[in-house]
Amino acid sequence: MVKVGVAGYGVIGQRLADGVALQKDMELVGIADLAPTLSIRALREKGMPYDLYLVEGADKAQFDAAGIPYKGSFHDLIGKVDVMLDSSPGGVGAKNKELYEKAGVKAIFQGGEKNSVADVFFHGYANYEKGLGANYLKLTSCNTTGLIRSVDCLDRAYGVDRVAITIIRRAADPGDYHRGLTNALQMDKAPSHQALDLMTIMPHVEATGILVHTPVTHGHIITVVAHGKNGKKITRDMALEAFKTHDRIRVVRLADGFLGNASFFRYARDLGNPRGDMYEIGLWEDSIVESGDNIMYAINIPQESVTIPETMDGIRAAMKMQSDSRSATGETNKYLGLGKWKK
Amino acid sequence: MVKVGVAGYGVIGQRLADGVALQKDMELVGIADLAPTLSIRALREKGMPYDLYLVEGADKAQFDAAGIPYKGSFHDLIGKVDVMLDSSPGGVGAKNKELYEKAGVKAIFQGGEKNSVADVFFHGYANYEKGLGANYLKLTSCNTTGLIRSVDCLDRAYGVDRVAITIIRRAADPGDYHRGLTNALQMDKAPSHQALDLMTIMPHVEATGILVHTPVTHGHIITVVAHGKNGKKITRDMALEAFKTHDRIRVVRLADGFLGNASFFRYARDLGNPRGDMYEIGLWEDSIVESGDNIMYAINIPQESVTIPETMDGIRAAMKMQSDSRSATGETNKYLGLGKWKK
Amino acid sequence: MVKVGVAGYGVIGQRLADGVALQKDMELVGIADLAPTLSIRALREKGMPYDLYLVEGADKAQFDAAGIPYKGSFHDLIGKVDVMLDSSPGGVGAKNKELYEKAGVKAIFQGGEKNSVADVFFHGYANYEKGLGANYLKLTSCNTTGLIRSVDCLDRAYGVDRVAITIIRRAADPGDYHRGLTNALQMDKAPSHQALDLMTIMPHVEATGILVHTPVTHGHIITVVAHGKNGKKITRDMALEAFKTHDRIRVVRLADGFLGNASFFRYARDLGNPRGDMYEIGLWEDSIVESGDNIMYAINIPQESVTIPETMDGIRAAMKMQSDSRSATGETNKYLGLGKWKK
Amino acid sequence: MVKVGVAGYGVIGQRLADGVALQKDMELVGIADLAPTLSIRALREKGMPYDLYLVEGADKAQFDAAGIPYKGSFHDLIGKVDVMLDSSPGGVGAKNKELYEKAGVKAIFQGGEKNSVADVFFHGYANYEKGLGANYLKLTSCNTTGLIRSVDCLDRAYGVDRVAITIIRRAADPGDYHRGLTNALQMDKAPSHQALDLMTIMPHVEATGILVHTPVTHGHIITVVAHGKNGKKITRDMALEAFKTHDRIRVVRLADGFLGNASFFRYARDLGNPRGDMYEIGLWEDSIVESGDNIMYAINIPQESVTIPETMDGIRAAMKMQSDSRSATGETNKYLGLGKWKK
Repeated sequence: MVKVGVAGYGVIGQRLADGVALQKDMELVGIADLAPTLSIRALREKGMPYDLYLVEGADKAQFDAAGIPYKGSFHDLIGKVDVMLDSSPGGVGAKNKELYEKAGVKAIFQGGEKNSVADVFFHGYANYEKGLGANYLKLTSCNTTGLIRSVDCLDRAYGVDRVAITIIRRAADPGDYHRGLTNALQMDKAPSHQALDLMTIMPHVEATGILVHTPVTHGHIITVVAHGKNGKKITRDMALEAFKTHDRIRVVRLADGFLGNASFFRYARDLGNPRGDMYEIGLWEDSIVESGDNIMYAINIPQESVTIPETMDGIRAAMKMQSDSRSATGETNKYLGLGKWKK
Repeated sequence: MVKVGVAGYGVIGQRLADGVALQKDMELVGIADLAPTLSIRALREKGMPYDLYLVEGADKAQFDAAGIPYKGSFHDLIGKVDVMLDSSPGGVGAKNKELYEKAGVKAIFQGGEKNSVADVFFHGYANYEKGLGANYLKLTSCNTTGLIRSVDCLDRAYGVDRVAITIIRRAADPGDYHRGLTNALQMDKAPSHQALDLMTIMPHVEATGILVHTPVTHGHIITVVAHGKNGKKITRDMALEAFKTHDRIRVVRLADGFLGNASFFRYARDLGNPRGDMYEIGLWEDSIVESGDNIMYAINIPQESVTIPETMDGIRAAMKMQSDSRSATGETNKYLGLGKWKK
Repeated sequence: MVKVGVAGYGVIGQRLADGVALQKDMELVGIADLAPTLSIRALREKGMPYDLYLVEGADKAQFDAAGIPYKGSFHDLIGKVDVMLDSSPGGVGAKNKELYEKAGVKAIFQGGEKNSVADVFFHGYANYEKGLGANYLKLTSCNTTGLIRSVDCLDRAYGVDRVAITIIRRAADPGDYHRGLTNALQMDKAPSHQALDLMTIMPHVEATGILVHTPVTHGHIITVVAHGKNGKKITRDMALEAFKTHDRIRVVRLADGFLGNASFFRYARDLGNPRGDMYEIGLWEDSIVESGDNIMYAINIPQESVTIPETMDGIRAAMKMQSDSRSATGETNKYLGLGKWKK
Repeated sequence: MVKVGVAGYGVIGQRLADGVALQKDMELVGIADLAPTLSIRALREKGMPYDLYLVEGADKAQFDAAGIPYKGSFHDLIGKVDVMLDSSPGGVGAKNKELYEKAGVKAIFQGGEKNSVADVFFHGYANYEKGLGANYLKLTSCNTTGLIRSVDCLDRAYGVDRVAITIIRRAADPGDYHRGLTNALQMDKAPSHQALDLMTIMPHVEATGILVHTPVTHGHIITVVAHGKNGKKITRDMALEAFKTHDRIRVVRLADGFLGNASFFRYARDLGNPRGDMYEIGLWEDSIVESGDNIMYAINIPQESVTIPETMDGIRAAMKMQSDSRSATGETNKYLGLGKWKK
């Protein structure tokens, strides 16, 4: 059993912890945080299913006042794990890395850290082999993770050599107040970092794109214009066939009620998924259109949970649990129940 | 075991079904709907934990095409139940009533129907006894249900004879596209129907108020200015003490991270509550202020789920399962796990 | 002086009336409407700078009660004009057409009507000549009008044979309550009608695209991936140079404070433009990127006012006031003050 | 002619400058700012109707690059004026005060500064006389300014001794990206500062209240529960009569199309008011209801422009241009065109 800890029990950290708890070949040793946030308070109300460790600077009196028990220090947690999933706020992970190095513990960082924090910038499908045995991985961000799933899917099936993307980005998560946007669409300087990141992970693809922030909370939408390798046209039917076989892509139709990003959230809630989360990206069958040699389509990225499967893949790579992407993603998918819904 | 059916498996209907399934002295016989909506599709993906019956006009071919099995007709379902919870779209319930009358089946309607559809306009705390043995009850709407919880709580403890409310209403539910509001606060004609409804349920209280629609999806907020009976002042401490003992009121603090309506949703998701639902209204300790003889406070109404407990109370009243509000609400609360979190 | 009337004094109609009033070679005879809307009430408060005529079905008592004077009937107005600009609600224009035909009056319809209402589907730059002398023109919709400006600009300069667009559409106008979207991105079936419309106006270009509705009010944003004719690459510099010379395209930079769609609205308000309107589309210099043979860029469409200049062009075409696009758009631009800001 | 300067040409500063320019007994000497913002760029595009002075720290090269001419330094401007209207970002005004003191120049600060910056916390109607001849005034904030207009109106007519308010606050201005709220209602700790501020200006009134932030940009809405002095009841008709006579209160009806906060913005745009601004607060006739001895009503606060008239009053007080509120507000109203619309 690979022993795993989670540093930072926020939006991503909670979901990482739940994801690890579902992997039958891993053990979640505990989670670490700094303050009695709402998420930590909810953990207490649930009866502390996960052990809590306090990072340096935590005010114990606050935890005591809230009746929240803790098992020890972050240092204690590090001493008990093989791999730490670091979902601390941006920049903190880089500092934590010193602790991991001292303790000889591997770590996987989330998209908010700089690439330089890790040996390998990682995606479970697109470059699993690069992560094999690595000590420090950094996961692609939520948008890039979902985007690469779809581009890699077409690339494996038919070859892709160029993409131009438009990212329609959600501005905040449900429950956020500290960031937000009110009645405005905000532009970023092009090309977007997601396009550049895609090229780092898939160096044989030329990518560019434009990102626009929108005042919504339930999932990014990305449109992709993908060019078949050497101009070999990918037709609508070819694309659809490939997408439908992917266990982390959920192909849906407007006619079935998937009218937008909020439909996935609604559907996941109705499914009874914890937190109303969905691990799959959504892909609208009705969005796929051809444009010369290009195929164009739109995907939905559930930003809170989309990176969880690929992070599980990352543990598998770093710990050499499986030697190739196909086996590793297969194990992750099995434990997370991905692909089941197709049957 | 009281046998219960649910007509209309939408936002409210799903939650009613789940609520009944949790009551150990009731049996959920099945649910009825018209079309293979997202919620029905999710039911299928979950393996049909509830039996589905089709209402008149349903296109069976659509259900067959989606691989959704059904047990029979709405008529069949009516024949098997003691009480039907009718959460059909507004107006349909009134038509359904004819079927219930013919079959000699009791029914509880949701807030969208006209009051005239029912014998009693009902609230589990404020007028339980009026519902005892009644054939047709209508529940108060989401805002009114939550509002009355708080006013009845003060009224029982200290006496209240007047309230002036401001309702800051969410415009849509998560996943709605057909209604919505974009960058506007919309006024309703005063007094709001919620104030009028409160007076119907609590005739000894004079109520008025103003309602403003806002472009959000996670819960209404209501401010209440309540006047102690005969001018007997309710102090901040008195109010707080009463609210804290109520099993369907969750008293929270800004300092603990409950910064607004979306915090309750976030917290319920983090708790692992199905769909991120919360049955309790929220009440901000930091919002309670005194104004002359009046006490003022703010509550949060989780619109999708708040009426579920009172509807369970309604079944108890209609079927005379318990003879008074205290016992009935106690049973409902026990099965829904309400009040546990205080311990 | 060409005599012009406006039918329907709503969001578009008001701006059409103002636009005509600025054309020194046209005379605004009057406007027609059905009810004392906010816009008509504002007209009264301004002292009735435009004469009002009442369409059939108007309740005169309402106008009298509001103290709003009127000059006569819609029939009277039709009898006094050469061209009617019809910005009635969708579908009404088709009925009005019978009146125009009977009176031998030309008409220009807005994007809400079906193409079949008109002899020519019109854009002032892209197919002016087709409109010469025509009796019934239909303007492209706001998105299509702005989109074509930019594509036609590149096409004239360098040749374009294919575009793939992503439309990030505002859901409502400021002041709308009857339509709206709350916290959701809504998908339309692809290809979007704007892509199809572009092909009708520019038949030598292959176009497709995806449209996503967003809950904002201040302008659509469109990203365009355009392919140089026969694969002749349009570089970033070439595109920028062409865009900068266009009098109805305003090239801006993020660094100058144009951070998104709301910045154009803010800037137009600060300029003192009536209603905070802008006739130009915005084009972000920082959004232009190359992708293989394609050039990609993002534009901002001020939905309330963008079609006004092209509608003025339409009058010029229908009345043969100028014989070619260059002269006609030049006159329109001169009277609307377009292009001045570059100097 | 009283000579006036404006420090900080942002959302408020621009409107202050325009307001002064309309007062025929004042002269706008110039405005001062730090950077070539969108508003300054718009000033240039309009041909520099106001002279620009640069505050310390301004990068002249940036202004030169943008082709924006300036007349001199902030120090130069201070030397030319009798009164400075300081609408610098919060905190900067307090530093600027040292410059004003050194130069012997009076100043009026906006609501963002601490009360201690000024000798008198000022409202043109409620405490004009306190500001007579004062060197440093601070205006009430937008919400408080509008709120006091309505409470003072009732107080003068009938006497008011207590108010309980609910503020439904807009989160951002049109064109803002740096602050914002997405799909959430955010609570503030009660009592709101606006209630406390009201008591400072009107010490004979007891005030408390709750503030909720909402994700909209076009105007705050406040509901007010006001208690007649010594319990003397103010009826609906009495309130309406008083409100209708006030030149800075615009009484409107839902039936006329004023459906919410965005309607005022829409109406002001349709009126052709610069920037779509409105100086008056809106008051819905349909919102006025009685509650025991209390009168309840709802007002709309156009946050960008509402403090302009009272700031003009402040200049009149500080410079002793008029000796009482009635005369001073009358002059301000005359030049701003307030009250005209009633006739």
